[in-house]
Amino acid sequence: MADLGTLVLLRHGQSTWNAENLFTGWVDVPLSELGEAEARRGGELLAESGLLPDVVHTSLLRRAIATANLALDVADRHWIDVRRDWRLNERHYGALQGKNKKQTLDEFGEEQFMLWRRSYDTPPPPIEPGSEFSQDRDARYAGLDAPLTECLKDVVGRLMPYWESAIVPDLRAGRTVLVAAHGNSLRALVKHLDGISDSDIAGLNIPTGIPLRYDLDENLKPRNPGGTYLDPEAAKEAAAAVANQGR
Amino acid sequence: MADLGTLVLLRHGQSTWNAENLFTGWVDVPLSELGEAEARRGGELLAESGLLPDVVHTSLLRRAIATANLALDVADRHWIDVRRDWRLNERHYGALQGKNKKQTLDEFGEEQFMLWRRSYDTPPPPIEPGSEFSQDRDARYAGLDAPLTECLKDVVGRLMPYWESAIVPDLRAGRTVLVAAHGNSLRALVKHLDGISDSDIAGLNIPTGIPLRYDLDENLKPRNPGGTYLDPEAAKEAAAAVANQGR
Repeated sequence: MADLGTLVLLRHGQSTWNAENLFTGWVDVPLSELGEAEARRGGELLAESGLLPDVVHTSLLRRAIATANLALDVADRHWIDVRRDWRLNERHYGALQGKNKKQTLDEFGEEQFMLWRRSYDTPPPPIEPGSEFSQDRDARYAGLDAPLTECLKDVVGRLMPYWESAIVPDLRAGRTVLVAAHGNSLRALVKHLDGISDSDIAGLNIPTGIPLRYDLDENLKPRNPGGTYLDPEAAKEAAAAVANQGR
Repeated sequence: MADLGTLVLLRHGQSTWNAENLFTGWVDVPLSELGEAEARRGGELLAESGLLPDVVHTSLLRRAIATANLALDVADRHWIDVRRDWRLNERHYGALQGKNKKQTLDEFGEEQFMLWRRSYDTPPPPIEPGSEFSQDRDARYAGLDAPLTECLKDVVGRLMPYWESAIVPDLRAGRTVLVAAHGNSLRALVKHLDGISDSDIAGLNIPTGIPLRYDLDENLKPRNPGGTYLDPEAAKEAAAAVANQGR
């Protein structure tokens, strides 16, 4: 069997709502200036390491799309093939979308807050259709029975068909594949790749803007379990910061 | 037969080399700040007119790609399907790439200058492989027998297979199709759509950053010959300015 291509995961840089400490989910907010700088830094890391994507997969949300655009432009790979799918979207945060993380923590308490943020199979309450931060009239999800809330298990469930049908074929074709997506859609993918248990995945944080390389064998198992960050020191510091969100 | 979708052409905004009055062709220069503003204005025009693309086709050059990205983000259509192909590239300007237009005019005289710029079938001298502004080591054209120079007739010849095989199927599927490309690849397409003669096409200039809508009948003939600019007054002024380039 031919060698597989290389998989590179890239979590979008800081968004304006990350900066304001709000639950975002499927709300389509832009990158902050810091987030744009993170994306460009991600592109520099790709270029410096000679890890040049042949195709990019993104979610339908502009913070992932802009991250890909900025990083690829810096790496002089703006011209590669593009694929987009809602299955790479961030976890839908249900009724929490638009709410302040600190206020939610104070209102519902540590236990409930952590359950919504980190439990594998407890989704937040569903969002009310027609409410301010709902996507039920959004043209990009027309014809889709879009979720009203999701736990990480739901994200794994809707991501895997896209992994199998769209990303794996690009890898089997020997291409270097960039996936520009979100904290939880990338956690879902890493959980699958590394065979992380439903409980252990709670402790895994993926830093923003630092490309994470996976070299896969012919059975799609990582030759480098856990992947390899292109800037390991920065990744360690950033992961610690993500773990403290909402505090 | 079902109604065809709508075709929208968008010429990229000013590039840094447009601003410096250099022949650009396949050299991959970025948009200037003015060009970025033009692209965003193009997106505003799309949004204001409710002409919302379902899919975008671009060249492999960043001035067209960035124009599409900026316009679509402003129009809240950043999430649509993307297709890219070298067949939408600007005309290859051969040995003139990187040369100043005014100096070229002075050096070769009005007649030769206009022949290279506007004749249908006289290409400039070919570019020397390995020279500064050649693309022969550019990864995006690997495996392609890339041209070393082109006249407009050559552009028509390499564009039409892409029109037939990639753009027309999107139109037949009833989609609103944005083509973000270049002065000469769009002139080639307009020549075909409107049945403009080899001599009359010399007088046609397409302004930058102003979306041009074509409503096509089932035989792919325009119901609105010449197309409809979303900002007709601005288009008239801009076309006049383009005609005076190099003076």
